[in-house]
Amino acid sequence: MLQNFENYDLITPTAKISTPTHGGRAKCLQRLVRLDLPVPKTVALSFNAIKEIVSGKMPNLANIISNFNPEDTLCVRPSSESIDWGGPGAVLNIGMNDERCSHLSKNIGKKAASELYFRFIQAYSVNVARLDPDVFDHITDANGSSVSAALAAYKEEMDDSFPQSIEHQLSEVLRSMARAWQGTSARLLREAKGAPADAGLGLVIQKMAFGVGDGESGSGVLQLVNSENGIQQITGRYLRQSQGRESLTEKQGSLYLTSDPRGPSLETEEPALFNTLIKNAKLMRRKLREEMQIEFTIENGNLHILDGIRVMRRPRAAVSIAVSLAKDKVISKEEALMRVDPRAVGELLHRQIDPSVERDIIAQGVAASPGAATGVIVFSASEAQACAARGEACILVRRETSPEDIRGMHAAAGVLTERGGMTSHAAVIGRGIGLPCVVGVSEINFHSSNKVFSISEGHTFKEGDLITIDGTQGHVLGGSPKMIEAALDDSLKLMLDWAEEAGDIKVRANADTPSEAKTAQNFNAQGIGLCRTEHMFFEADRLTLMREMIFADNRDERRAVLDRLLPMQRSDFLELFTLMDGLPVCIRLFDPPLHEFLPNDREGMHNLAEALDLPLSRVISRIETLAEYNPMLGMRGVRVGVTVPEIYEMQARAIFEATVEANKNGIPVIPEIMIPLVSAKREVELVRSRIDGIASTVRAETATEFDYRLGIMVETPRAALRADDIASSSAFLSFGTNDLTQMTYGLSRDDAGRFMSDYVKQGVFPEDPFHTLDIDGVGELLKMGVTRARKVKRDIILSICGEHGGSPESIAFCREIGMDYVSCSPFRVPVAKLAAAQLAIKDDIDPPR
Amino acid sequence: MLQNFENYDLITPTAKISTPTHGGRAKCLQRLVRLDLPVPKTVALSFNAIKEIVSGKMPNLANIISNFNPEDTLCVRPSSESIDWGGPGAVLNIGMNDERCSHLSKNIGKKAASELYFRFIQAYSVNVARLDPDVFDHITDANGSSVSAALAAYKEEMDDSFPQSIEHQLSEVLRSMARAWQGTSARLLREAKGAPADAGLGLVIQKMAFGVGDGESGSGVLQLVNSENGIQQITGRYLRQSQGRESLTEKQGSLYLTSDPRGPSLETEEPALFNTLIKNAKLMRRKLREEMQIEFTIENGNLHILDGIRVMRRPRAAVSIAVSLAKDKVISKEEALMRVDPRAVGELLHRQIDPSVERDIIAQGVAASPGAATGVIVFSASEAQACAARGEACILVRRETSPEDIRGMHAAAGVLTERGGMTSHAAVIGRGIGLPCVVGVSEINFHSSNKVFSISEGHTFKEGDLITIDGTQGHVLGGSPKMIEAALDDSLKLMLDWAEEAGDIKVRANADTPSEAKTAQNFNAQGIGLCRTEHMFFEADRLTLMREMIFADNRDERRAVLDRLLPMQRSDFLELFTLMDGLPVCIRLFDPPLHEFLPNDREGMHNLAEALDLPLSRVISRIETLAEYNPMLGMRGVRVGVTVPEIYEMQARAIFEATVEANKNGIPVIPEIMIPLVSAKREVELVRSRIDGIASTVRAETATEFDYRLGIMVETPRAALRADDIASSSAFLSFGTNDLTQMTYGLSRDDAGRFMSDYVKQGVFPEDPFHTLDIDGVGELLKMGVTRARKVKRDIILSICGEHGGSPESIAFCREIGMDYVSCSPFRVPVAKLAAAQLAIKDDIDPPR
Repeated sequence: MLQNFENYDLITPTAKISTPTHGGRAKCLQRLVRLDLPVPKTVALSFNAIKEIVSGKMPNLANIISNFNPEDTLCVRPSSESIDWGGPGAVLNIGMNDERCSHLSKNIGKKAASELYFRFIQAYSVNVARLDPDVFDHITDANGSSVSAALAAYKEEMDDSFPQSIEHQLSEVLRSMARAWQGTSARLLREAKGAPADAGLGLVIQKMAFGVGDGESGSGVLQLVNSENGIQQITGRYLRQSQGRESLTEKQGSLYLTSDPRGPSLETEEPALFNTLIKNAKLMRRKLREEMQIEFTIENGNLHILDGIRVMRRPRAAVSIAVSLAKDKVISKEEALMRVDPRAVGELLHRQIDPSVERDIIAQGVAASPGAATGVIVFSASEAQACAARGEACILVRRETSPEDIRGMHAAAGVLTERGGMTSHAAVIGRGIGLPCVVGVSEINFHSSNKVFSISEGHTFKEGDLITIDGTQGHVLGGSPKMIEAALDDSLKLMLDWAEEAGDIKVRANADTPSEAKTAQNFNAQGIGLCRTEHMFFEADRLTLMREMIFADNRDERRAVLDRLLPMQRSDFLELFTLMDGLPVCIRLFDPPLHEFLPNDREGMHNLAEALDLPLSRVISRIETLAEYNPMLGMRGVRVGVTVPEIYEMQARAIFEATVEANKNGIPVIPEIMIPLVSAKREVELVRSRIDGIASTVRAETATEFDYRLGIMVETPRAALRADDIASSSAFLSFGTNDLTQMTYGLSRDDAGRFMSDYVKQGVFPEDPFHTLDIDGVGELLKMGVTRARKVKRDIILSICGEHGGSPESIAFCREIGMDYVSCSPFRVPVAKLAAAQLAIKDDIDPPR
Repeated sequence: MLQNFENYDLITPTAKISTPTHGGRAKCLQRLVRLDLPVPKTVALSFNAIKEIVSGKMPNLANIISNFNPEDTLCVRPSSESIDWGGPGAVLNIGMNDERCSHLSKNIGKKAASELYFRFIQAYSVNVARLDPDVFDHITDANGSSVSAALAAYKEEMDDSFPQSIEHQLSEVLRSMARAWQGTSARLLREAKGAPADAGLGLVIQKMAFGVGDGESGSGVLQLVNSENGIQQITGRYLRQSQGRESLTEKQGSLYLTSDPRGPSLETEEPALFNTLIKNAKLMRRKLREEMQIEFTIENGNLHILDGIRVMRRPRAAVSIAVSLAKDKVISKEEALMRVDPRAVGELLHRQIDPSVERDIIAQGVAASPGAATGVIVFSASEAQACAARGEACILVRRETSPEDIRGMHAAAGVLTERGGMTSHAAVIGRGIGLPCVVGVSEINFHSSNKVFSISEGHTFKEGDLITIDGTQGHVLGGSPKMIEAALDDSLKLMLDWAEEAGDIKVRANADTPSEAKTAQNFNAQGIGLCRTEHMFFEADRLTLMREMIFADNRDERRAVLDRLLPMQRSDFLELFTLMDGLPVCIRLFDPPLHEFLPNDREGMHNLAEALDLPLSRVISRIETLAEYNPMLGMRGVRVGVTVPEIYEMQARAIFEATVEANKNGIPVIPEIMIPLVSAKREVELVRSRIDGIASTVRAETATEFDYRLGIMVETPRAALRADDIASSSAFLSFGTNDLTQMTYGLSRDDAGRFMSDYVKQGVFPEDPFHTLDIDGVGELLKMGVTRARKVKRDIILSICGEHGGSPESIAFCREIGMDYVSCSPFRVPVAKLAAAQLAIKDDIDPPR
């Protein structure tokens, strides 16, 4: 008896029921009972009880049934720990048999009673006795004769009469549902949604409230908000003479809830019932501290609340609901922050293809930069710019992109490439500028003219054809499907403000251009963590100067060319400083190998020879001399800085002169200057001494004081290993996890695409390490770097920049090892800020259910 | 008085004199005194005494002088701790003055006395008073009037008479020599030879034995061995009526020591003196336990031994002397091993340009692979092979070399490239096959025809011209200077046997081909530590098959091609196993990116299209598809093994079948199979399961048992960091420090050449990390890897392979962190074995002086 007592409980305000022992539904029902809502009598079976049923021990059903009236019929519904983990379908009307059918006929009419009985026979046969549904196909109408036919069909198949005892029926239903939970596919499904291997199932046995019969009878669902956008709007359906969720599946005959010009509504037809319902719904919102969908039944004019389920919601609604609950003081701001998945916020910040639209998918690639875009096909950066000039949206289609395509990418609505992976040039730049991007579409075949490409199965596309790419899902689609626009609405804005208050690790943005800086500002970035300056040199007039510098014969000639670049750089920086209005800006000095600035085709070389008035042979030979086997591991970063010091000197001067100017304009700037690709302390010292020299000169020339910080980008394993040594000459270290990952794995992100998907599929790498920070390997270097740097300089500023900076897992890791900030694409700033806030809150409170 | 007592000592058998306090010369003189040799009376001034002289405190010279007779003149010679650290020049004849000159005239004649006085005035004026030597230019002959003229010249310049007091003279000489030791250039010179910043100088004051005067008088040097080759051969010169080392500088009139048909000798002229001298020399060898050069003077028929200096010796002589002393039981084998610089041994293993020859140096490059070679110029690998077929030595001159040049390199006598550094392809392969190699000769200008190159200053060279390269010094020379052949002589062979007994870390060789394996065997390598298998695929017939495999459409086609490669691989391995006769052989599975096997010029592509019967466009497109941005970080090593598993399967089968065959032939083989470029444990598991499968199949097919070991090459920082994880599935880890250095620094060895010399010059890197193991960075990863691997598997075999394996510093580091063996170029094996032996011995005994 004790055992039974433990294994089932009549749900009363004081029964010992909890989500981890009885499941969410049972607990929710108890809460409704405590609110004195009209919940039909319910008994909850614990996870343990269900386990025992599986192993053959049935609880004392007679005792359970004795809680109900003899004429009651029952329903059994699943109650797992999380609603996301699913469960076996509910079984209604248990207890229906010949006798109860004829008894009920007196109350609700023969037709209704027969229908209930017939439905039960059908549900029991299919779900419990596991008969084929088509056994009942020949029974067209639900009435007295259909019941007889169903009973006969059952007997024919089972070689036994349909069970008449409620105890027998209930026993079989329970056993069947308990076993279904153990099934392999059910288990895999729920494990995919995060359920542990031993996730339990509870069941609730509830007295049926009939939605059929005399008087106002029916069933429906109701919620107070719109699931798409979260705005306050009574939503739902009510269907007379129905049970369960039929009002949702059988639209015909359903009533609106609120008065509606399109047809009859519950509000107008049954105002008292409607008002009670709304009052109860509001009570549930306040007391259950959540927007709930209510499942209700009206039986002969009486309202019954059968269940409450957390309202399903799209990301935008999730934000809006959480903020609204907090504004109404139903929950705290912290709890509101905890209720939204940061990844969902990411979805809000890009255009999307309307999910209701049928997709004409013509190819699949890597979803490299989220968001969807439609435009005409162009095959070169210059055509993309021409389109932009005409105000026409275009999709830039390339085998792969290179830095020379950047302006074309800025001009395009989206980019599609044949090659590359999550970290190819197109992908990284795309995410950086929030440009939808699909890469690695290996089915693309470029035809030699290069103005046409085909995709397997004979689709051929030419310049000017309209296509759409979905960078969130990696789809290439024909035509222009309907779109949903991105927006940072008021709720999200407010939530991000709260996130900033709650977070204890800062979030900056990687921004190279004024437009990216503006985005960073809009998304409340706490500064710029990485401004890559090389992009500034690819604009047409500057590119020419860069090339002139590369061809300069000596230091003085180089200086002369750089003097012409100086005012342009200065105005770049002044614009950034002005935009960021006093927030920190970390400028990375020139990084790429010089050969990236030289043309790689014959025509380009010829043009360059003409422009520089040099013999073609000299141009070609210089280009050949600068060519590298492994540019990633070649003469770039500080190696250029040490070998051709004039470039850094010019940049430092531009930064300092812009600083003086900004300070003059009332914007307090302490620029952060970052040296890339350091592997030895002496590199820092050499650059530092030159930059200190420039600072003194500018101070003297302008007769003003200014401050600045010099630090390094930790991109080589050696810089991480020697962080103690290097920290002593640095104000900050910023870990560039893109390159650090490349070097730790010995794996070029540009070349990894060829086998990465194979590797992830075979489980060689659990994830693409360029997408998900490799905590075991790269992470250990980060940790080592942080620990060692802090040991020699406790207050050194430590951060990560690069693609990983925006992911919640990376932020958790960086926070744990003690970094001061993360820096990520501007479009990921909101995601990162929310993730950061959640981490800080998690340390204080338990996450709510 | 106590202070003076401490600061100088009359050298007696019991005086407290030691090398660290008084210098090597003082200590050696005491040893000679102890042997009762006729050493003139000598006083030693300690390092402290000289320090005090510098700070102004002169020892009590009257007391010092009182040790000598009033008529004695003195000489002062330097006595630093090591003879290599130099010191101020000796000053002879101190004490000469008007009075002593006239006194001496009575004993040795006026001419001799005047000459001694004149020489002293001159030496004192120039070295002590710091007058210009040309002050005495007008004094042509040394006689009584020349002394007057010299005294007048001194007075004219110094405005003071030449000092007549011996005490004054000695005081000035001591002060001058003490100060000279402090000079900046002297300090830099000795520091370059390894002296510490505070290295001390001692001085010895010795009674002059005059080599001039009546009776048999003169001076000379003698040693019992030949300095070039170390064979027993009395060597030296004797000059009558001379002092110091004049017999060596003024050849005219010198006597041979032993009887010589070419002229008079000491042996025939003064047999008794000669015999005494030889007896003393042998005594010194036995008692001083070293071959010594004796400086002696005969004064009126009396022999004086002024000094003994360790015989200077060329590397070959060093080995021979050490072995001979040990064979004579003068020193132990261990001490003999300690006496030879391992680097010197390296020099013996290559041809050298005769050092006595004047060099016609036309350009300077990087000394990439030691040894000298003369040959006709060729510009392509195929021409090199043609030359080899004609039996003509050639020098392969290329802009840079690539794997396709390897057979040409094997055929050439030397390689000269315009580009590259210590670790360029040419350099690494050159060192591997013992091929002299000069790279990075940037002065080379190739002319478009490519059959001519010029070197700055108008030298033009065409195909067929004769040049010589010196890979030990990086010289390019015109013509064919005289050469000295390399050889592993009996002494060196014996020494290497002793080294193997003494060493406690094993030395294996990197050997890819039978000829390299033979060299490894000749040099007593303890196995092959790295057999790179890819070189095996570049032979003409195999290259074609490799290309066919790359173009295969599917797994089965690939397998079919690989089946044709299988017998070739099997015979490669069988030959290696047979050659190594049971010593371990570690075979690295296929490593390079596939595109290395494809042609990169239009003509090659066209030929390939023809050979494979494919459209050219298909060939080009496949080549383009396989091209990589950073091949070093691309699809190579285990990534090819996982993605195209058929290659490793074929290799494993070839290894196992060769093993079975070798075992059948009575050679016990347990092959070691090494997986390259691992970064995750799962890569090892995937490859292991396939290879285990192949092993089972071969065991079943051949109905024989065999064993093998599977391990990995640690080349990525991640593999080092995750060594614990990876060790659990590996029998051994071999650290490939070339690639590990590349990835730790983020620096491609092929591209580093462009700035490495700049970097080392500016002190950014103390040394080229591809040449000298970076203990701080890469070394830490090695240490981490070793510690972690041993933690999970105590008996795992750990080693390093790659360029660093042969350097004494790297071996010391590897031994210290607990590696089992190092593997290096066959030509470095003797160096490594000697270094290893020295390390083991050092741990037991103190190194001898």
